[in-house]
Amino acid sequence: MGSWQGYLDAHRDGAIEDLVDFLRIPSISALPQHADDVITAANWVAERLAQAGMEHTAVMPTGGHPVVYADWLHAEDAPTIMIYGHFDVQPVDPVNEWEHPPFEPTIEGDRVYARGASDDKGNLLAPILALEAMLTSEGALPVNVKCLFEGQEEIGSPQLGTFVEAHASLLACDAILNADAGQFSATQPAMGMALRGLCGVQIDVDGPNSDLHSGSYGGAVQNPIHALVDLLDAMRDEDGRVLVEGFYDDVLPLTPKDRRDIAAVPWDEQTYMDDLGVDALWGESGFTPRERAWARPTLEINGITGGFQGEGTKTVLPRTASCKITCRLVSDQDGEKIIEAITSFVQAHCPPGVRATVTSFGSGAKPYHVPNDLPVVQTLAGVLCEMYGREPFYTRSGGSIGTCAILLDVLGAYTISFGFGLPDERYHAPNEFYRLSSFFRGQTAYCMALETLAQ
Amino acid sequence: MGSWQGYLDAHRDGAIEDLVDFLRIPSISALPQHADDVITAANWVAERLAQAGMEHTAVMPTGGHPVVYADWLHAEDAPTIMIYGHFDVQPVDPVNEWEHPPFEPTIEGDRVYARGASDDKGNLLAPILALEAMLTSEGALPVNVKCLFEGQEEIGSPQLGTFVEAHASLLACDAILNADAGQFSATQPAMGMALRGLCGVQIDVDGPNSDLHSGSYGGAVQNPIHALVDLLDAMRDEDGRVLVEGFYDDVLPLTPKDRRDIAAVPWDEQTYMDDLGVDALWGESGFTPRERAWARPTLEINGITGGFQGEGTKTVLPRTASCKITCRLVSDQDGEKIIEAITSFVQAHCPPGVRATVTSFGSGAKPYHVPNDLPVVQTLAGVLCEMYGREPFYTRSGGSIGTCAILLDVLGAYTISFGFGLPDERYHAPNEFYRLSSFFRGQTAYCMALETLAQ
Repeated sequence: MGSWQGYLDAHRDGAIEDLVDFLRIPSISALPQHADDVITAANWVAERLAQAGMEHTAVMPTGGHPVVYADWLHAEDAPTIMIYGHFDVQPVDPVNEWEHPPFEPTIEGDRVYARGASDDKGNLLAPILALEAMLTSEGALPVNVKCLFEGQEEIGSPQLGTFVEAHASLLACDAILNADAGQFSATQPAMGMALRGLCGVQIDVDGPNSDLHSGSYGGAVQNPIHALVDLLDAMRDEDGRVLVEGFYDDVLPLTPKDRRDIAAVPWDEQTYMDDLGVDALWGESGFTPRERAWARPTLEINGITGGFQGEGTKTVLPRTASCKITCRLVSDQDGEKIIEAITSFVQAHCPPGVRATVTSFGSGAKPYHVPNDLPVVQTLAGVLCEMYGREPFYTRSGGSIGTCAILLDVLGAYTISFGFGLPDERYHAPNEFYRLSSFFRGQTAYCMALETLAQ
Repeated sequence: MGSWQGYLDAHRDGAIEDLVDFLRIPSISALPQHADDVITAANWVAERLAQAGMEHTAVMPTGGHPVVYADWLHAEDAPTIMIYGHFDVQPVDPVNEWEHPPFEPTIEGDRVYARGASDDKGNLLAPILALEAMLTSEGALPVNVKCLFEGQEEIGSPQLGTFVEAHASLLACDAILNADAGQFSATQPAMGMALRGLCGVQIDVDGPNSDLHSGSYGGAVQNPIHALVDLLDAMRDEDGRVLVEGFYDDVLPLTPKDRRDIAAVPWDEQTYMDDLGVDALWGESGFTPRERAWARPTLEINGITGGFQGEGTKTVLPRTASCKITCRLVSDQDGEKIIEAITSFVQAHCPPGVRATVTSFGSGAKPYHVPNDLPVVQTLAGVLCEMYGREPFYTRSGGSIGTCAILLDVLGAYTISFGFGLPDERYHAPNEFYRLSSFFRGQTAYCMALETLAQ
């Protein structure tokens, strides 16, 4: 261990105070009324990086939510490592299900509860504190470091690709460590080797020009809710295989090795079901639940609304109904092609008497896959092995981080997951939390990783 | 014409002021926070009846929203006529679609815009003003009159049956005129001979114990929105025939005479579609649109909700989704049996990995049908013929007024529709209005009807 560990140990209380400060900022990127809060979070991150000793700290415009950049480039002949994370967070609804207000961080034992605690503020702050520890205790970093922290990850990083292209030389690097990531468990490391892509649409079904009395008109006129239900049900078969024409055209089949790698990761179906409180899993036949969640595409309704929403009943035939859908994509699916396929499907299957409109939310992330034999993968696996006393599992994530594919395309550098969230931390859901033990482990791990990558 | 017409003509301005006052009360029976407003409306009606010269005016408890009673029983050897109406109104959402606030009545030409203007406050106030005109100008009514005005019609009159049973002698009468009704057009009278029944349920589909990240879990876990969509789509075939087992068991087939009566009422499909802004009608095959809306049962989703409702996207697999359904029923369907059938269907067809719960809103109204050859029907038809210069059409309504069947069961008296709303007045929808010309015509018609019924 370097002298940085002493620094980290001595500054634990301050680190927690910093984390709590950071979590108080309601930086919800999806909601326009929180745009200023995302800027506040960006400024907070930039100031914390400067305080840590990083240089050229800047909040940079993107056309949407900003990016925070910083670097330290004085390690001659050493590689240049980029650290990536995001300071925006998911919306908080249903807010009445939170036990503590989502932006009033609450510490209970080893846990800090707040929106964004695990995804990704805790994981983003850990490497900043690692950089401070090394710069303060040793006066230098063992490698060149660039930080790229963004504020639009939770809405699919719509402007990040353009930003990275416009600043390709500023951002040039040899490898990227992704702090928006997690480990298999508190005792078992893992390296995430793949991410699913993402695209999204909204479907609006419009019927009569006014809400109608369901007694006067019911039976004669198409009900937009029923029409939407009909359209949506036609999109998947009874075990969840997507029936949208062309949906699977570009999906690379899982190889026997892919399936062995996935199966090698221990997983208990009953525990998984018990944790979720469901009595059965469900999905596309011919694949294990793990394969379905990690390596198969989905078409998921994220929200649906139409007609009367209050208490009791209202005998209305509503004039409109709508839903939001996102698809998780795998190599080599293309989000824009999938959105076109959904649009064509909706137009072809729209029931009579209503009009259906598909609005694209764009293709937020390409699917992404890291080759297992990449040298930086082997190096980081060694760090994890030293920290945990075990070889990491090589896992996948069903989630989407569009930046990985963008950075590979533009900078030619692979992004390797290196974060310390744990799977039960309710990211994207009420009562999200992060473990303080993971927070401290992450600080140590980043110091070790930068030392090892220098060799 | 009696001297009452002079009184009505002289008090037109006051009648409009009364109507506007009445419409200002937001007496929404479906919403608990408006319960006091329903009481305010009851008191308003009771005071107006007393002012009109009616006796034994009372706001009577029901266990739910109150009933207003009044009578005038000094016409010896004359029949006793009850007048029925309701002073509660529908909810107002989507409130942003109203051009004027729903409880700030706005007069534009012949129209007064407000929630409840047509359904049923304008139609209820007309007979009160008719009673006042006769009592003031002639000092007596030609028949005995009892008024029964209720405050829970829009939620299916849950306590009215018990109330009527408990007060059967107070309410005893020979026939009932129902002011919650309308005419075919401004120039063509009609008598409504049938109403559909009503029953309602809510279906809740619960999946995992927390909202889930759609990337981490999507594909492996049943999504409650998809499960609800699957359940709902299974309930009807592609042309809207209900597939819930047993749904049609007690439906009396339409006779050739029924179908001739319905077809005799002129109706232009293209105009109907143009008015609604739809390019096709839709529903159960083998029946005309008019038959489907008037004389066939329906299963209609009135509202659906689940998951993310905000702007943009949220990549969530929500833990719950729900919908509200009402069914319109025809003779001899029984609402409780239909609710049982829906409950059994939901349990039998619930997809794996979620739990579905059906909550009954009860059976709000029995289907109802008036025999065409009833003497009171012929008498009132004569009044309408005199007023409009045309024989009335014998129509049906697809809507539901539970009271008609209750009053027939308990009092042995048929309820005959005698109201002056017109079909385009957007009852149950934003921008509801009533015509002042209908309001004055209703006052005259009630005076004529009471005179004729005395003979």
